[in-house]
Amino acid sequence: MQRYVAAVCRKAGEPLRIEEVVVAPPEPREVRIKIICSSLCGSDVMRWRMSDQSAIFPRIFGHEAAGVVESLGENINEVKEGDIVIPTFISDCRECEDCLSEKSNHCSKFPHKTSPWMPRYETSRFTDSEGEPLYHFLNVSSFSEYTVVDVAHITKIDPFVPPNKACLLSCGISTGFGAAWKTAKVEKGSTVAIFGLGAIGLSVAQGARFCGAARIIGVDMNPAKFEMGKKFGVTDFINPKDCANSKPVREVIKEMTNGGADYCFECVGSASVVCEAYASCRKAWGKVIVLGVDLKSNVSISALEILWSGKTLTSSIFGSLKAKTDIPILLQWYMNKELNLDDYVTHEVGFEDINKAFDLLRDGTSLRCVIWMDKNHAHCHL
Amino acid sequence: MQRYVAAVCRKAGEPLRIEEVVVAPPEPREVRIKIICSSLCGSDVMRWRMSDQSAIFPRIFGHEAAGVVESLGENINEVKEGDIVIPTFISDCRECEDCLSEKSNHCSKFPHKTSPWMPRYETSRFTDSEGEPLYHFLNVSSFSEYTVVDVAHITKIDPFVPPNKACLLSCGISTGFGAAWKTAKVEKGSTVAIFGLGAIGLSVAQGARFCGAARIIGVDMNPAKFEMGKKFGVTDFINPKDCANSKPVREVIKEMTNGGADYCFECVGSASVVCEAYASCRKAWGKVIVLGVDLKSNVSISALEILWSGKTLTSSIFGSLKAKTDIPILLQWYMNKELNLDDYVTHEVGFEDINKAFDLLRDGTSLRCVIWMDKNHAHCHL
Repeated sequence: MQRYVAAVCRKAGEPLRIEEVVVAPPEPREVRIKIICSSLCGSDVMRWRMSDQSAIFPRIFGHEAAGVVESLGENINEVKEGDIVIPTFISDCRECEDCLSEKSNHCSKFPHKTSPWMPRYETSRFTDSEGEPLYHFLNVSSFSEYTVVDVAHITKIDPFVPPNKACLLSCGISTGFGAAWKTAKVEKGSTVAIFGLGAIGLSVAQGARFCGAARIIGVDMNPAKFEMGKKFGVTDFINPKDCANSKPVREVIKEMTNGGADYCFECVGSASVVCEAYASCRKAWGKVIVLGVDLKSNVSISALEILWSGKTLTSSIFGSLKAKTDIPILLQWYMNKELNLDDYVTHEVGFEDINKAFDLLRDGTSLRCVIWMDKNHAHCHL
Repeated sequence: MQRYVAAVCRKAGEPLRIEEVVVAPPEPREVRIKIICSSLCGSDVMRWRMSDQSAIFPRIFGHEAAGVVESLGENINEVKEGDIVIPTFISDCRECEDCLSEKSNHCSKFPHKTSPWMPRYETSRFTDSEGEPLYHFLNVSSFSEYTVVDVAHITKIDPFVPPNKACLLSCGISTGFGAAWKTAKVEKGSTVAIFGLGAIGLSVAQGARFCGAARIIGVDMNPAKFEMGKKFGVTDFINPKDCANSKPVREVIKEMTNGGADYCFECVGSASVVCEAYASCRKAWGKVIVLGVDLKSNVSISALEILWSGKTLTSSIFGSLKAKTDIPILLQWYMNKELNLDDYVTHEVGFEDINKAFDLLRDGTSLRCVIWMDKNHAHCHL
């Protein structure tokens, strides 16, 4: 058994601890990957701090990453040792009805669930120095020198793409960009409102700009997001704090767009913001696309409003992208300078400083902090 | 002033009274119509029995009808005296952004509202024998020998179409058929579940059959609806009363469709049925289309379910049809025997028996009862 180091979360909200772990060899249809770098996503932070009954520890977080295939389980011909891959929380099995349909990326063979196990065997590949199993996270667990990922959850990429940019497409940036491009299919000349300008919301802006949206309105409590947003296509900005005493956000958006935005994206993770987005979008053809995770609340909308408004409410998982097909397309656009990935990487740290990455995301300082496994690559610009 | 008779509702839930009324001449852009016949729709009954603060009486109901243009207000070139027209509650002004867009039938010039006035002037054209104004209903008020309708709310039709079939396209049948055809764009080979097999639900079935749906599941508490439904395309039937003690409707539908119907249509008018429809449709590409009117309740769905299911919730007003463009198309299909209108007309009465029409619809005996203004045309088969 080979021993490596991983950043282990032993208790909700406590700093991760760099520990020695054993990473078992891959089972059939699994791949063991040497992680090059990870980027920290809001979902890592959300699950890290959750202490309710769904919280499961000790666990290895991290799900946006780039790595090198180190060894293969049986029956794999999609990748070989030495290939550069990026893992994804979402599966692209290429066998099931959904993966074979152009209308879905909701793999039926390995449906999304927050299971702490490998998807094919419901077991863990990690054990700690006491021999106790460590739980996986989102089928990836990249905060480790080595991890094991099912082949349905990896995408082979061009080795010339910088890994600290490629890793961004594992989750958030793909989700936002794809939500505008593939889920909503934003039309040229249309108006877009984005609630929440984190990395996902900014990627929605970039996707909307790519599709030719005429006006892209960002809504965020942090006024600094407007300048940041301009890099990704945001043309107008609303701070709900400024609206509170005068008129609600929905009214401001309706005035700016002559009746409501054509597309409203919820990137906060709040049922009440979903309702605000619904109210802010245009009758008849207005679409609300939910991207944010609210684990506890219900979205409640008047049945009469649903009927008479004609609006559409839907959601986007991983931007309706198929990982193995669409990630290479997005990376090619990055290499062609048609897709901006550079401006998401606001910070980079070495693995030993992983807890700083959490601090930077939690306080809104960073969009994406890249965590390098090899210190020599960490060009820290904190 | 010319005096005619109309069926006036003076109090919620009380039998209509045939009274003498004065029908004023049409104002500019209005048309006075001699009603040939009306069919009774559920919306008439719903508003007739409502006694809350939104109830407004005395009122003349009726909004599915066929008639002859008797006189024109100024500035009308769309129709002439003697033309056969059908009125619609929905406007098709052909001037506003919505009416000019292929994506909307939500006229912005005369947006739908339950105003009791003429849409362009906010006044009434009816007065009773005491000289008191009578309220309009849904821009039509066809339970009267003559009525005045805005030109934006009438569609000229082929005079050779039987009026007791043409009138059906004023509201319910167009709404249901269009919801499958234009709103949902039901795909060939797909599965459809329809909650509520009144005239609207049966029209959804017919629209789905027209689009090539492979399986059309009707859900209704009245077991007699299955036989009726077969005429319109229903292939399977679920009675929720039979399910109550074993498994919920959603589970039965999921088993029948291998995971959920591709399209679920809510034609009952109940927020809780909207939720059942949402739960019954397939992940990823499943669509719920709300057609039923629930004036009071909220639809409440878990934010996490919205996010992870990828399902789409939307609605259909008048089947996403543009009245002046699409009603003539549907009538042509009727004349070509591609559209079944005959089987909706289960009963026909003379005007003096209008209250029987209410009884027949309320107790579920009739789908559509046609009310003829001229007794000689009433081939009553009660």
